[in-house]
Amino acid sequence: MQQINGNFYKKSIISIDQFDVHDIEIAFSLADSYRKDLGKGTVFHDLEGKILTALFYEPSSRTFGSHIAAMQRLGGSTIPIQGVTFSSVSKGETLEDTIRVFASYSDVIALRHPDEGASEIASTYSPIPIINAGDGIGEHPTQALLDLFTIKSRLGRTDNISVAMVGDLKYGRTVHSLAKLLSLYKNITLHFVCPKTSPMPTDIVSLIAKRGVVTKTASSINDIINKVDVLYMTRVQKERMDLKLYESIKDLFILDAKLADQMKKKSVIMHPLPRIHEITKEVDDNPRAVYFTDQVKNGMFIRMALLKMVLTKR
Amino acid sequence: MQQINGNFYKKSIISIDQFDVHDIEIAFSLADSYRKDLGKGTVFHDLEGKILTALFYEPSSRTFGSHIAAMQRLGGSTIPIQGVTFSSVSKGETLEDTIRVFASYSDVIALRHPDEGASEIASTYSPIPIINAGDGIGEHPTQALLDLFTIKSRLGRTDNISVAMVGDLKYGRTVHSLAKLLSLYKNITLHFVCPKTSPMPTDIVSLIAKRGVVTKTASSINDIINKVDVLYMTRVQKERMDLKLYESIKDLFILDAKLADQMKKKSVIMHPLPRIHEITKEVDDNPRAVYFTDQVKNGMFIRMALLKMVLTKR
Amino acid sequence: MQQINGNFYKKSIISIDQFDVHDIEIAFSLADSYRKDLGKGTVFHDLEGKILTALFYEPSSRTFGSHIAAMQRLGGSTIPIQGVTFSSVSKGETLEDTIRVFASYSDVIALRHPDEGASEIASTYSPIPIINAGDGIGEHPTQALLDLFTIKSRLGRTDNISVAMVGDLKYGRTVHSLAKLLSLYKNITLHFVCPKTSPMPTDIVSLIAKRGVVTKTASSINDIINKVDVLYMTRVQKERMDLKLYESIKDLFILDAKLADQMKKKSVIMHPLPRIHEITKEVDDNPRAVYFTDQVKNGMFIRMALLKMVLTKR
Repeated sequence: MQQINGNFYKKSIISIDQFDVHDIEIAFSLADSYRKDLGKGTVFHDLEGKILTALFYEPSSRTFGSHIAAMQRLGGSTIPIQGVTFSSVSKGETLEDTIRVFASYSDVIALRHPDEGASEIASTYSPIPIINAGDGIGEHPTQALLDLFTIKSRLGRTDNISVAMVGDLKYGRTVHSLAKLLSLYKNITLHFVCPKTSPMPTDIVSLIAKRGVVTKTASSINDIINKVDVLYMTRVQKERMDLKLYESIKDLFILDAKLADQMKKKSVIMHPLPRIHEITKEVDDNPRAVYFTDQVKNGMFIRMALLKMVLTKR
Repeated sequence: MQQINGNFYKKSIISIDQFDVHDIEIAFSLADSYRKDLGKGTVFHDLEGKILTALFYEPSSRTFGSHIAAMQRLGGSTIPIQGVTFSSVSKGETLEDTIRVFASYSDVIALRHPDEGASEIASTYSPIPIINAGDGIGEHPTQALLDLFTIKSRLGRTDNISVAMVGDLKYGRTVHSLAKLLSLYKNITLHFVCPKTSPMPTDIVSLIAKRGVVTKTASSINDIINKVDVLYMTRVQKERMDLKLYESIKDLFILDAKLADQMKKKSVIMHPLPRIHEITKEVDDNPRAVYFTDQVKNGMFIRMALLKMVLTKR
Repeated sequence: MQQINGNFYKKSIISIDQFDVHDIEIAFSLADSYRKDLGKGTVFHDLEGKILTALFYEPSSRTFGSHIAAMQRLGGSTIPIQGVTFSSVSKGETLEDTIRVFASYSDVIALRHPDEGASEIASTYSPIPIINAGDGIGEHPTQALLDLFTIKSRLGRTDNISVAMVGDLKYGRTVHSLAKLLSLYKNITLHFVCPKTSPMPTDIVSLIAKRGVVTKTASSINDIINKVDVLYMTRVQKERMDLKLYESIKDLFILDAKLADQMKKKSVIMHPLPRIHEITKEVDDNPRAVYFTDQVKNGMFIRMALLKMVLTKR
C-alpha cells in the first residue's frame, strides 16, 4: 500500500497506514474550514456533478448516513446501495465485478464490507477512488481520523496525550486504527483496559511501541480514570464473538456518572457508537462527553475533507 | 407539547394538536403557492444545501417517497434510511441515540416508527426539527393537514362541512388526526360509519364534541351517502388486529360506483391509501374521487410547506 | 403499443418495438454528446428540478444504480424505492395504484418488476413516462439500446454485422430485445449458440427472419468464434429454471482466453452482467472485452439520453 504524501487526488483511502503527519494536517485543515463555513450557513458546490456510490454489503446506517451527508453537503449526489447482498451478488457476482460496475457510474465509492481486506482488493480493481468505510475486523480509517480530529479540536494538541482504550480491544477495529494513528505523534501513552480474552493485537502493540508509544494495561477503568486526557470507550461487539464470551464480559467495563466526574477537567469521553450500556445515560450530559456531539459531526467534516481531496486537484 | 402560533422555525411537528387555525392558514397558503409555481415549471432553490433524513423504522414507500420528493422539489438533499431496524438498532441502540446521530448529519428528520409517542420522545432529544411521519396508532399530522388542504381546495371552505368517516376508526390514525383538525372549524358534522368493534376512541369523540362538532354514528354507508360533503374511506388495517376480527369486518364497508353516484354533486371521496378493496375500481373515474390525484399531490405540497417553515425564518 | 417516431416527449419506453432507425439515431446522438461532455468534466443542469422514481420490485443494484446515476448526472433528483414489496404492496396495493402514487411525486418512473408485461400495464395508468427497467422474461429495451450503442461505437457501423448470441436464449430477455433491435439494420447475421432446451423463442426468430436477418444455430462457441464481429455472452439464469436443468447446462458455453484470442481483430466480447463463470477472468484483459468498460458506461449515457428525451421538448 502506497503512502499518500499530501497528494490524495484519485487515491483510495484504505488504511490509516497510508497517512503521515503532513497528510493528516491537510485533512484536518480542510475539515476545520468546512466546519466553520457550514456553521455560517455556507452552501457548498465543490463536488457538484460528482457522484458517490455508498456500497454497503453490511448494514451500518450511521456510517452510511455520514458519507451520504458529506457528499451532499458539498453539492454532490449519491447512489445509495444497501443490502447489495440481495441483488447481483446473490446471482453470484464477485466483489471485483461489482466494483467495476459502480466505478463506471460514479466518481468515488465508499465501501462497507464484512471481510477484512475487502477494500484493498476493491481498490486494485477500481479505476476510481475507494474509501474504506469499514471492512470486517480490519481497518476503519475515516473513524480514526475523525477521532483524532475531535481530540485535537478539544484538547488543542496531538502530542503529549494519555489515552485509555476500554472494552473489547481484540475485535474493535476503531481502536486498532486509532492506536496506529496516535503512534505518529510524540509522547503518547495508551492504557489498555480490556478483558484478558480480548487484548489489543500484539502486532499493533509492537508497532506502536517501536514508534515510541508507552503502552500500559489496567484491569479497570477506576485505575486510570484520573490520569487520562482521553477515555475511549467501545462496545463489546456481540456479533463478532460467541454468546458465552459476550455474556461474561459485557458488564465488566462500564462508565457511569460517578466515574466520569473523577476525570481531569480538560479531558474527553469518546465512543465510536452505537453505545449500548457501556456508558450510562447520565454521562451524556457530562461536559467531557463528545460522542453524540463533536465526534459524529466531525465524522461528516472529515469525510467531506477526504471526498474533496480524492476528487479534486489541490 | 407547545403550540406553534405561526412561528414554525426550528420546531418539531409531532401532533395536529400543535396547530391552530392561524398556523394552518400559513401552511396552506405556502402549499398553495408551491402548487401553482410547480405547475408553471418553477425550479426551487429554497432549501439548497439542507439535508432531510427520512428515518423509517417501518416500511411505508408512499410516505417515504412523499417526504423525499418534497425536500428535493425545494432543492434540498435527503439521506434515505429504510429498515433502520436491521442496522445500528439491531446492535441495541436506542431511538434517542439514533436520533442524536442523524441530527448531527442533517437539518430535519422525518420519522416513521411503529410505537405510539416515538416522535415526541425523539423531539425531546433532537437539536433539529422532527416531523412525525406516523408513529404507531398515534398521530399522522401531515396526513391530516393534506386531507384538510384537499377538502378546502375542492369545496372552497373549511367551515360548514359534513364528513363521513368510514372503516376501522379505532386503529386508523389518519381519521383521529383529521377529526381533531376539523374540530377547529365551525359547523362541522362527523358521521362515524364503522364496525361496533372498531369505534372512534371516546377521548377523541368527547374532545371534538366539546369544541362543537356534531357527531353521529351510522351502520352503513347507505345511510349517509347523500348527506355528506366528504366521504373519507379507510382501509381496515389487517396488521393491527387479529385475523378473525379482520375477516369479519373487511367487507362490511365498501364503496362502489352505484353508491358513489348518490353523493352530492359537489362532494369528495377521500382515502389515505393504500386502498385495498374498500373502494371498487370503477369509483376511480368518478369526478368526486380525489385519492389518487389531489390527495397524493397535495401531500407533497403540504410537506414542502412544512419543511420550508421549520427550516427557514419567516 | 404506439411507435415513437422521433418525438419521445412524455412517452413511455416499454419495448424495443417502439423504436425505428430514426429514433435510435436521435438517442445515440444524444448519448454520444453526453459521453464526450462528461469526459471533459461538464456539469449538466438539463433536468434540474425533475425527479425520477426508481421503483424496483425486484433487486437489481446494477440497473438501479445506472438509472440513478443517469438522472443525477443531468442535475435531477431521485426517489430510490427498492424492495417495494415489503411496503404498501404487502398491505395489498396493486401495481396500478402504486404507480399512480409515485406519478404524483415525480416526473418519470424507472420500473423493474418480476412479471412480464408489468411496464405496459403501468404505462396505461401513469400520467408520466414509464421506463421499463426489465419486466420478467419480457423486455429490457434500455439494455438493448446500450448494447447496440456499444457495437456502433466500437465497430463504427450498425449494418453488415455478424453476431453470436451464446447461453440461455430462451429466458434471456436482453438477447430477445437485442435481436429485434438488430433486425432493423441491413445484412445482419445471428448465430444462436445455446442448449437445445433453451432456444431463441420462435416468434422472435420468425420476426427477424422476415425482416431479413440471417439466423443460424451452432452447438459450440468454437464453431463461430472466428467468424463473428460480436460475441454476446449471457448468464444462464438460475432463478428462472429448475435446478436440474441449470446444473446440466451451466458449464456448456464458456469463453476462455484461448477461445477469445481466435476472434477477429476488430470484434467485441459483450455480456449484460452479472458475469458468473461463463467468461473466465483472463478474458477481462482482452482488448475486445467491453462488458466492464464500454457497456456499463454506455448504459448510463443511453439512460441519460432517454431521460432527457422523455422529459424535455426537442
